[in-house]
Amino acid sequence: MTTITSHDNAQLKEIRKLTQRRSQRERAGRFVAEGEDLLAAADAAGWEPVQRFCAAGSGLAGTEVEPKLLSQASGIASGTRAVAIYAERFTDTPLGPVCVYLHGVADPGNVGTILRGASAFGAGSVALGPQTADPYSPKAVRASMGAVFEVPLARVADGELDRLPGTTVALVADRGVPLAEVEIAGPVTLLVGSERDGLPAEVVSGAGTVARIPIANHSLNAAMAATVALYELSRMAR
Amino acid sequence: MTTITSHDNAQLKEIRKLTQRRSQRERAGRFVAEGEDLLAAADAAGWEPVQRFCAAGSGLAGTEVEPKLLSQASGIASGTRAVAIYAERFTDTPLGPVCVYLHGVADPGNVGTILRGASAFGAGSVALGPQTADPYSPKAVRASMGAVFEVPLARVADGELDRLPGTTVALVADRGVPLAEVEIAGPVTLLVGSERDGLPAEVVSGAGTVARIPIANHSLNAAMAATVALYELSRMAR
Repeated sequence: MTTITSHDNAQLKEIRKLTQRRSQRERAGRFVAEGEDLLAAADAAGWEPVQRFCAAGSGLAGTEVEPKLLSQASGIASGTRAVAIYAERFTDTPLGPVCVYLHGVADPGNVGTILRGASAFGAGSVALGPQTADPYSPKAVRASMGAVFEVPLARVADGELDRLPGTTVALVADRGVPLAEVEIAGPVTLLVGSERDGLPAEVVSGAGTVARIPIANHSLNAAMAATVALYELSRMAR
Repeated sequence: MTTITSHDNAQLKEIRKLTQRRSQRERAGRFVAEGEDLLAAADAAGWEPVQRFCAAGSGLAGTEVEPKLLSQASGIASGTRAVAIYAERFTDTPLGPVCVYLHGVADPGNVGTILRGASAFGAGSVALGPQTADPYSPKAVRASMGAVFEVPLARVADGELDRLPGTTVALVADRGVPLAEVEIAGPVTLLVGSERDGLPAEVVSGAGTVARIPIANHSLNAAMAATVALYELSRMAR
């Protein structure tokens, strides 16, 4: 097996493209995960990589790459010893019994954290609405701590809210009933909006229920609100 | 009023030192906040800056600084137009009725997010134990979204857990009773450990109650766990 030693190597170029641009990921239907912990999470979840790379001399599995070149290609903190390319997976039908629908959650760190919360509290899927960060972007994948390999993802376009499973509960900041008081029987989809602007009015008005997380001061970001709401739904279901 | 135009200006040097080193902040008892939103949060909470700086020509309040120099000094994303130095505040007595004690929460982003959650759910204070990131570091201040100016902070050394208010509830990953089932009357302190190692055994064994947030898979980070727990305590208190 030869070690990749050139910056211009076609495979390193692919890694760079996939980490840098959403359009490249969507065109290729592929993404990159970096670091031994994430790759182990993918393995544990049964994801076979398209290709696996490792730092030359690391003794890890994969095509060997000059360590410095591997770090540069992945664009993450220096010292990454393992990188792999995976095929993106999207499910056609957002699944319950609990689904989280994201609308305008533009920060990839928040999307990744929500995936982690969704996995922790046993959500059936995360549905990605308009203006939402790519769950397969490097920041989202990292923030998910591997949950991106565990929670089914679906894409939902504007006007397709009827594809979401069960009762819809719009999470808003300043109106609605406290979430703990919502009566829920059967599947439910939480609708979560952007930190700055919340959910669009038409999404809220189309929801089955409008609910809030009661807070004393300040605000919660989208990831904190979604995590708390997922906790509350799982508590109520117990 | 003269505009600061030299990189070697003593005030810019102070900003750089305070943003870069915890030891400098502790020695001076001062820290830096950056950006108009954070400075507005400080104003709203009644914090008077030691000194305020603004980008020359921005029309904002403060000592004018050549814009590029201001951005460089603050070390945050380019384009910061407002920076201020504040005196750190610590309260001697961690306050209830709900206090959050952090032990080994080394990530400043997590500490800032926990401050935000503490403010949202009306905690009386956040107590900073050993190996915990500086709440006045630039990353923590930013992640707090201004909550650092709202929630009283206390420092608690090893072996001083008797200074914490009320019943102590150690939050652990894999044992204890579900938090929602804990019987709490009166003040309470949540004990939160590091993401990787959790709370030290002696902290857990000294706690009044050991509780967990029930999860289906995966894990929660310290900030998510603390936020969910603060939500649960505020829900139970309603």
